[in-house]
Amino acid sequence: MSHKQGTSSGAPITVLTQDLVHKLPAHSPLLFAQKKAKNLSFETIAAELGREEVAVAAIFYGQGNASDEDITKLSQILDIPEEVLRQTEITALPDRGRSMEMPPKEPLMYRLYEIVQNYGYAYKAVMNEKFGDGIMSAISFSTKVEKETDDKGDWVKITLRGKWLPYTRF
Amino acid sequence: MSHKQGTSSGAPITVLTQDLVHKLPAHSPLLFAQKKAKNLSFETIAAELGREEVAVAAIFYGQGNASDEDITKLSQILDIPEEVLRQTEITALPDRGRSMEMPPKEPLMYRLYEIVQNYGYAYKAVMNEKFGDGIMSAISFSTKVEKETDDKGDWVKITLRGKWLPYTRF
Amino acid sequence: MSHKQGTSSGAPITVLTQDLVHKLPAHSPLLFAQKKAKNLSFETIAAELGREEVAVAAIFYGQGNASDEDITKLSQILDIPEEVLRQTEITALPDRGRSMEMPPKEPLMYRLYEIVQNYGYAYKAVMNEKFGDGIMSAISFSTKVEKETDDKGDWVKITLRGKWLPYTRF
Amino acid sequence: MSHKQGTSSGAPITVLTQDLVHKLPAHSPLLFAQKKAKNLSFETIAAELGREEVAVAAIFYGQGNASDEDITKLSQILDIPEEVLRQTEITALPDRGRSMEMPPKEPLMYRLYEIVQNYGYAYKAVMNEKFGDGIMSAISFSTKVEKETDDKGDWVKITLRGKWLPYTRF
Amino acid sequence: MSHKQGTSSGAPITVLTQDLVHKLPAHSPLLFAQKKAKNLSFETIAAELGREEVAVAAIFYGQGNASDEDITKLSQILDIPEEVLRQTEITALPDRGRSMEMPPKEPLMYRLYEIVQNYGYAYKAVMNEKFGDGIMSAISFSTKVEKETDDKGDWVKITLRGKWLPYTRF
Amino acid sequence: MSHKQGTSSGAPITVLTQDLVHKLPAHSPLLFAQKKAKNLSFETIAAELGREEVAVAAIFYGQGNASDEDITKLSQILDIPEEVLRQTEITALPDRGRSMEMPPKEPLMYRLYEIVQNYGYAYKAVMNEKFGDGIMSAISFSTKVEKETDDKGDWVKITLRGKWLPYTRF
Amino acid sequence: MSHKQGTSSGAPITVLTQDLVHKLPAHSPLLFAQKKAKNLSFETIAAELGREEVAVAAIFYGQGNASDEDITKLSQILDIPEEVLRQTEITALPDRGRSMEMPPKEPLMYRLYEIVQNYGYAYKAVMNEKFGDGIMSAISFSTKVEKETDDKGDWVKITLRGKWLPYTRF
Amino acid sequence: MSHKQGTSSGAPITVLTQDLVHKLPAHSPLLFAQKKAKNLSFETIAAELGREEVAVAAIFYGQGNASDEDITKLSQILDIPEEVLRQTEITALPDRGRSMEMPPKEPLMYRLYEIVQNYGYAYKAVMNEKFGDGIMSAISFSTKVEKETDDKGDWVKITLRGKWLPYTRF
Amino acid sequence: MSHKQGTSSGAPITVLTQDLVHKLPAHSPLLFAQKKAKNLSFETIAAELGREEVAVAAIFYGQGNASDEDITKLSQILDIPEEVLRQTEITALPDRGRSMEMPPKEPLMYRLYEIVQNYGYAYKAVMNEKFGDGIMSAISFSTKVEKETDDKGDWVKITLRGKWLPYTRF
Amino acid sequence: MSHKQGTSSGAPITVLTQDLVHKLPAHSPLLFAQKKAKNLSFETIAAELGREEVAVAAIFYGQGNASDEDITKLSQILDIPEEVLRQTEITALPDRGRSMEMPPKEPLMYRLYEIVQNYGYAYKAVMNEKFGDGIMSAISFSTKVEKETDDKGDWVKITLRGKWLPYTRF
Repeated sequence: MSHKQGTSSGAPITVLTQDLVHKLPAHSPLLFAQKKAKNLSFETIAAELGREEVAVAAIFYGQGNASDEDITKLSQILDIPEEVLRQTEITALPDRGRSMEMPPKEPLMYRLYEIVQNYGYAYKAVMNEKFGDGIMSAISFSTKVEKETDDKGDWVKITLRGKWLPYTRF
Repeated sequence: MSHKQGTSSGAPITVLTQDLVHKLPAHSPLLFAQKKAKNLSFETIAAELGREEVAVAAIFYGQGNASDEDITKLSQILDIPEEVLRQTEITALPDRGRSMEMPPKEPLMYRLYEIVQNYGYAYKAVMNEKFGDGIMSAISFSTKVEKETDDKGDWVKITLRGKWLPYTRF
Repeated sequence: MSHKQGTSSGAPITVLTQDLVHKLPAHSPLLFAQKKAKNLSFETIAAELGREEVAVAAIFYGQGNASDEDITKLSQILDIPEEVLRQTEITALPDRGRSMEMPPKEPLMYRLYEIVQNYGYAYKAVMNEKFGDGIMSAISFSTKVEKETDDKGDWVKITLRGKWLPYTRF
Repeated sequence: MSHKQGTSSGAPITVLTQDLVHKLPAHSPLLFAQKKAKNLSFETIAAELGREEVAVAAIFYGQGNASDEDITKLSQILDIPEEVLRQTEITALPDRGRSMEMPPKEPLMYRLYEIVQNYGYAYKAVMNEKFGDGIMSAISFSTKVEKETDDKGDWVKITLRGKWLPYTRF
Repeated sequence: MSHKQGTSSGAPITVLTQDLVHKLPAHSPLLFAQKKAKNLSFETIAAELGREEVAVAAIFYGQGNASDEDITKLSQILDIPEEVLRQTEITALPDRGRSMEMPPKEPLMYRLYEIVQNYGYAYKAVMNEKFGDGIMSAISFSTKVEKETDDKGDWVKITLRGKWLPYTRF
Repeated sequence: MSHKQGTSSGAPITVLTQDLVHKLPAHSPLLFAQKKAKNLSFETIAAELGREEVAVAAIFYGQGNASDEDITKLSQILDIPEEVLRQTEITALPDRGRSMEMPPKEPLMYRLYEIVQNYGYAYKAVMNEKFGDGIMSAISFSTKVEKETDDKGDWVKITLRGKWLPYTRF
Repeated sequence: MSHKQGTSSGAPITVLTQDLVHKLPAHSPLLFAQKKAKNLSFETIAAELGREEVAVAAIFYGQGNASDEDITKLSQILDIPEEVLRQTEITALPDRGRSMEMPPKEPLMYRLYEIVQNYGYAYKAVMNEKFGDGIMSAISFSTKVEKETDDKGDWVKITLRGKWLPYTRF
Repeated sequence: MSHKQGTSSGAPITVLTQDLVHKLPAHSPLLFAQKKAKNLSFETIAAELGREEVAVAAIFYGQGNASDEDITKLSQILDIPEEVLRQTEITALPDRGRSMEMPPKEPLMYRLYEIVQNYGYAYKAVMNEKFGDGIMSAISFSTKVEKETDDKGDWVKITLRGKWLPYTRF
Repeated sequence: MSHKQGTSSGAPITVLTQDLVHKLPAHSPLLFAQKKAKNLSFETIAAELGREEVAVAAIFYGQGNASDEDITKLSQILDIPEEVLRQTEITALPDRGRSMEMPPKEPLMYRLYEIVQNYGYAYKAVMNEKFGDGIMSAISFSTKVEKETDDKGDWVKITLRGKWLPYTRF
Repeated sequence: MSHKQGTSSGAPITVLTQDLVHKLPAHSPLLFAQKKAKNLSFETIAAELGREEVAVAAIFYGQGNASDEDITKLSQILDIPEEVLRQTEITALPDRGRSMEMPPKEPLMYRLYEIVQNYGYAYKAVMNEKFGDGIMSAISFSTKVEKETDDKGDWVKITLRGKWLPYTRF
């Protein structure tokens, strides 16, 4: 089966830099190596798996969960024998958060961190008024990235959607 | 002029806790005191100013900018003489980010931080494939919080929308 | 109405030390002052409110939520006029986690921290095998402290009970 | 001797991710490799050893002590020659706490940390009133994880039980 | 009742420096003020209370527990009305460890810290061989400072004595 | 020459865990390997060298100095050719303190750290009254660990003995 | 094609020190090795690429973006087959900021950091008065280093030029 | 003497926010109060003093030195009696760097920090090739901020100019 | 008695900035106030006390010890009644090191820190070869600052002189 | 050519410990290996190079600059072919400060750090009075270590000599 080469935008596909490898589980370099060899974008892989691009990228970085069906499809699209993939840690439950140094030094990631830093209290104040005492779940949660273009240029639109969890009274 | 008391949701309005005061500019306790005295939600104030609730809450926490018109309207809705308000630091440009301790200890704010920590690389990977080399601006930027309800309960939907800034070649 | 003086165990009741006051909301010193004046234990106050002792202590330290009914009962048992109490920040939603320095320097609190440090991976491994990919909620959550005595001495039994939240597939 | 494959819950068994290996003693990867090869849960191994699952997982992560009898049984159930196992560091006394980065970045472990952060003072206050001046031991201590299910879903119940140690008067 | 003025060694008595006050409970400056006014050493006070000097100094810094009898004797020797003393936080259980910044900047305290840093593994190795798996308790614990003089000069001898706590098997 | 196998207490001898090796000088794993192969306790080795157990363990962890005579005896008791030992870094002067992470995560070592944290000011106050302005040396210093047993169980007694150094007036 | 050997100033060319390699992407040591083998300065390479020296050095340290044309020219000037270069991570988008430890320990880099530390508020105050509320972009940005010489010696002139981004009103 | 009100750009003048006062010397709030009362920009004050705006703002924030002549002129333009000003700490030599928290949380200041973080090695590499072994002085140093406008908008141009200091050979 | 006004160099005398006061003992602002009122340099005061300038400045910052005779002379030269001075903490033994934030942000102090950072290993290597295993005491220690001038300008010469302490063999 | 073996003091020569190697440039282990093989002290090598011992040790640790002539002499005295040495990073400009962890854990280096911590403000106060506003350069700087012996024992004398740099007025 042949898939679309490269990205829709014409930007190069994301590959794994060497200096991050030691912070990731063993399937990360394997997945990224085949992604590079076959020149596949996360958009293409995500379409194949029926999942969001961010979720698929999270699997590649060892930060998200792959279902049995995901593994089968990854095996096909990346041309990695399924039994090889299943022997890696991809079948195990992810040990999230270790790859990331906080505060992020990378400018793109720092901007997201800065948004939390600047608007943290404002978000809390507004959510508490809209929902009462509780939190937005980061587990029962989904997110996506969209591209919008207008006459001023390109815009990134990130949506975060999480279940509201009220504090239990005890 | 009389405004809606309390919040739409029935949750109590957000007030300023004492232990945060010393980290905020001088107009913060003034604005919050009148917000409490008049029992106004950010939703009500934001509607009056024609701005997003998060942006208005950011002004209250000294993290955002108030225009001349904002100040006039805040003066009216909060019943603070305009000259009193203008004598505070609200007319100055905000010195953002100082109120917030990172990582946040407050569970609601920590969940937002955790999303950046867990999905940081995934966001970067996907944005780089969609836009090339650059960042999403946190300055040329807007955000909002919405409430959605379905049969599983309430959901928080946060939208982050920022201009894509490509790196200059030099 | 007269309540039991002191604690069941004969130990002195907990009071607020001066050096913590500036990290707490304004109702904390007020509640603690009356608790001390009337020599009431958290056990006695909790029985009156129909809540767990830990939950009541959390309200006193500004780390938990007081319902309308809680406020009425606190007003009665502590002999604080209800309108005085309602004017404090107790009616607002708590801004949790700020009073605590991590790692804790206090030996009792450090031991709890040490348990997380030593058994963190073991807890994760066991929970993942019992429940799959997800977390135990600290929000949809309750906890209690019990005393057990046998021939070897006294034992503390802490129970943590939280909802299991599986990661959303997206 | 043949043991139950996989977990009772149907979730995959826990395996060791590559990026943690360098923080663990030499027997950890050996034990985990055989646990994976034989597809055994901690529940199954713990039943064989007559110990709590958390305690057994702690041995696997180099955070707990294995008795002579434990080693014999681990040798049998994991199919590792006893003399091989005894040559590793498993016979030595554990050097606890090194594998864990604090605050934990992993969401499941962070929730436990957050409970200590939010309820630390409340726990102290309640314990001091119930027991006087002292601490709950984290050494003369046991813990277990249980699963409870009701119509709202699954619940995790963690029990911490430690000896109360009063401060010596000197 | 009249007590010995000053110290045996002729060195000035220890007083409380202003910059530490805000980290201590309310009875600390009170006790130190009277200690200074009456020019009493910890040796003199400790003899009166029948306790170790280090334990008494710990009470003054809010790091240790005062019994009822201690309070009565402190009241007498320091000439503070007992009811005044009992109104302070001295009757409450101490919230230990907050006054100290780690690593200590003060050279005398740093030397103690350095001993732990340099000999930590050596102490552990030796204790584990002498006692097995466990810890020396810092709670069921006493300590004292003694002065020894020989022809090379003065020597400090600190004794730490703690109960050995073996890990519970569970 | 044959030496006593194992420890007096029956506890296993201390061995070096793999994850610490990269923080130690090159002679550490060599010494520990032979100590393990010959099943020797620090007590046995220290008796042979005529030194304190803590001092010997410090040599093994690269935190202490070995004299020429020590090297000869270590060569004999550990069965390492003297020229091999002399080629390592053991003949060089130690670069102390690097193996230890502070605050210690290991519970046994943390308890020692906690004693400094809790009693730091008390020690300083008492020493200043006994000796004047100065410090207890950690260099012109010795320490030992002893075991005491009474009807309450086992006790660890640690003695720290250091030269008093008064500040020079200049 | 033959290029100028060494630097204009006579100073040695910059090479990559071994201890930094593990923090850089895989093409960094490759580029630096050829730069060293051919004894080329950044000035010479930058002239060939038509870019600023700082920008070219940033590519070498994995902190900047190489265009297709850059890669072709780098291949020629460094004598690395283009397909070899394209197989490295140079074609991927850079993951900036990871190589640098902050605050910098290196004196030259620390001086730049110190300028930000000392003049940070002054820069903000002046920019806010000149431009209003916003930031100078570090993305839509260029920088260069120039050498000036007068009778007092040599001077470094660094120019930072960034787009002014006003905060969006929302 | 009457001076130009406000800024050339129409942006509000910079004032001092309350939460920064405790980090600044005593003349800072005095200078800023009069700057606000008289609505003067740093541009206007700097022109009067014949100095760069950044240098003048640095004096206001206690980060720079005021000469005798500066003090006389500040006294005139700000309408503060010279003897009052001379009684403050402005006549003393500045204790630089204390007002600034690093990394900066304020977005404008963070961008400057980020430039150092991203381009630090590149700057060093280029300077070493242009000048040899040494540093750019941050003391024998000047800096200025300029505004440039083209059809793409406004640009900030910051110039840093420092003496090159070669390492002494010794 | 009248003393020389100001400094020999013509530079202003050092005064205490407001933001440092809360980190110093109570006699610091008192001493500095009179030093300022009488316009005395440390050189003048040190000559009077027969001590080094650095030692005298250390007393003013609460980092050094004042003898009885020092107090008498300070009383005279600063015109503070001796009984007032003796009532402060100056008679107590100093609690050193608390005023200083490390790494220092102040450029002059940072340069000293940088010397330790850059030459730390070199100093150790050279001292170990000259003296064997041990340290240079910072207690049995003196230091002075001298000014040297040649045709290249002014030079600072700092001398550190400390007793060599060999490690005790135990 | 034959050189003096060992040190003048009889102490062993300094060698490189294994655990520091990964923080140093590639020529460090090479230089140290030959220094050890030939049993040369820094005193001997420095005499050969006509430089200070500290400067030579700094070259060995990658913290200082080697001139062409230094390299030739090092080649001779250490018996390393000059072309081998020139192929290392020794010809490059040093990337200072990376090998050292701050605060230093090693007691000898900590004492130097402690001197800066305790006397930092005193040094600044005295230098400002002697020289005005500026810093002592750590670049236009030299340092040496001398040994002095009197009837009290051995003394270390360290001299730091740096150019005074006044702040530029701009």
